[in-house]
Amino acid sequence: MAKLLMGKEVTAALNERIKSRVNELKAKNVFPKLAVLRVGAREDDLSYERSLIKRCDAVGIEVKPVFLPEDVTQAELVGSVRELNEDITVHGVLIFRPLPKHLDDEEVRKTLHTRKDIDGITDGSLAGVYSGANLGYPPCTAEACIEILNHYGVEIEGKKCVVVGRSLVIGKPVSMMLLGKNATVTMCHSRTRDLAGICRDADILIAAIGKAGFIKAEHLSRGQTVIDVGINVDENGKLTGDVKFDDAENLVEAVTPVPGGVGTVTTSVLASHVAEAAFRASMPK
Amino acid sequence: MAKLLMGKEVTAALNERIKSRVNELKAKNVFPKLAVLRVGAREDDLSYERSLIKRCDAVGIEVKPVFLPEDVTQAELVGSVRELNEDITVHGVLIFRPLPKHLDDEEVRKTLHTRKDIDGITDGSLAGVYSGANLGYPPCTAEACIEILNHYGVEIEGKKCVVVGRSLVIGKPVSMMLLGKNATVTMCHSRTRDLAGICRDADILIAAIGKAGFIKAEHLSRGQTVIDVGINVDENGKLTGDVKFDDAENLVEAVTPVPGGVGTVTTSVLASHVAEAAFRASMPK
Repeated sequence: MAKLLMGKEVTAALNERIKSRVNELKAKNVFPKLAVLRVGAREDDLSYERSLIKRCDAVGIEVKPVFLPEDVTQAELVGSVRELNEDITVHGVLIFRPLPKHLDDEEVRKTLHTRKDIDGITDGSLAGVYSGANLGYPPCTAEACIEILNHYGVEIEGKKCVVVGRSLVIGKPVSMMLLGKNATVTMCHSRTRDLAGICRDADILIAAIGKAGFIKAEHLSRGQTVIDVGINVDENGKLTGDVKFDDAENLVEAVTPVPGGVGTVTTSVLASHVAEAAFRASMPK
Repeated sequence: MAKLLMGKEVTAALNERIKSRVNELKAKNVFPKLAVLRVGAREDDLSYERSLIKRCDAVGIEVKPVFLPEDVTQAELVGSVRELNEDITVHGVLIFRPLPKHLDDEEVRKTLHTRKDIDGITDGSLAGVYSGANLGYPPCTAEACIEILNHYGVEIEGKKCVVVGRSLVIGKPVSMMLLGKNATVTMCHSRTRDLAGICRDADILIAAIGKAGFIKAEHLSRGQTVIDVGINVDENGKLTGDVKFDDAENLVEAVTPVPGGVGTVTTSVLASHVAEAAFRASMPK
């Protein structure tokens, strides 16, 4: 039976680190603050916002909610982002996306300052994760994968890592982060031939395809660590990952469950970015 | 005997495409112009500049040389970059690097507008090649590899590509460009275990390590296409690639020679970026 890599254990350890960091900052009169910018009142945005406020509260980070009506104009939205850019009490800005269709996401992304981009959506953050420079922040879910591997002491250096999926929120950034930790990284996707063979050969397999149960026994082998980034709803309305869990449990060394795995860690990673942004802002230029 | 993938053939075809593009632009009163910004008078900069002027001249692109003395101040250098940013007759800016040690490369890089960054050094260009967005330009040598594969009709989609080396000028950008063309890409480096086995398994092997003759018979197999990006000087003072040429010639399907391979194509790729920058600048916003 595979070992379960539980998100809540990673989160608990990460939260302790964030708390002590926040306390150090507060001792220097720096009060980490996250602004969340929400347009309209979509149920999933509201639910995420509640969990975010709770998580930030638990580690001592203040949340400043900014609500704009569903029919806000582009100019008003961009104006709000500019205000948050200029507000020196705000260290990080999370913009709920996708935005309503009448708004230009690209302009909003370009307006946000990279130093406040704790969700990794600006070109500066993209360049940062790609180049390995200390610029902006990687997408939180990609970093959550690395946090889980680190927490459970899974060695990355020199290991064969296979990443299935090449999105800008998971596949590409997690590939770059694994490469930065000296893994040998293979990037796979829907056009990859012999995907099962390539996956079986991995020491660490990251599944980020967005298809329920796509990774099965034929993709898996003994000794592997499997990180399942998928969050899908199966035909019975049940939350399920990209990996067929029973197959993994019987075969591999360790696997993240869904729910209870990667998704659980993401919000804490976001909070850690806010603390880091507050720290960077407090440093002399 | 392996087929030789000759840079000059690729360059000849590419130059024809650039020429016809430049002529179309000139018919619309757009005159593509490249500024080259050189600090001091290093012999290799001067030599590159001469070949650049010749190549650009051949395809109808004007070159505006900007020379600054070896002891230029940071403020003067940044001022020159700003002037070139604002000069609407200049479409691309090439800055010779490395800069003398008293100058801050990072600030210079950040000053240059991404839309004129035909050499792919700005954060905007990094984000562009990483994300696949139409933003800035990839490093010319990385793109030269793709041009060679395209010219010789080497299929990329679905193929196993192995890239050895992870620099920002070759390894990372060429990996991203191959991924964008639907290859399955493995990124290797000095910490990769069983490098020979991984390389042998590649359909397309890109060698960009910077070590003369590092890739040998044990890394190669029948049917492969090998792109040798290395430009090293061997113990006899002879220019040589990262691939042991005799080994490759006896084993693989096709290989680029050094000299006469990738290096030959780079300047034409730069010229193509200037034409593209002039084209983008001529488009309505």
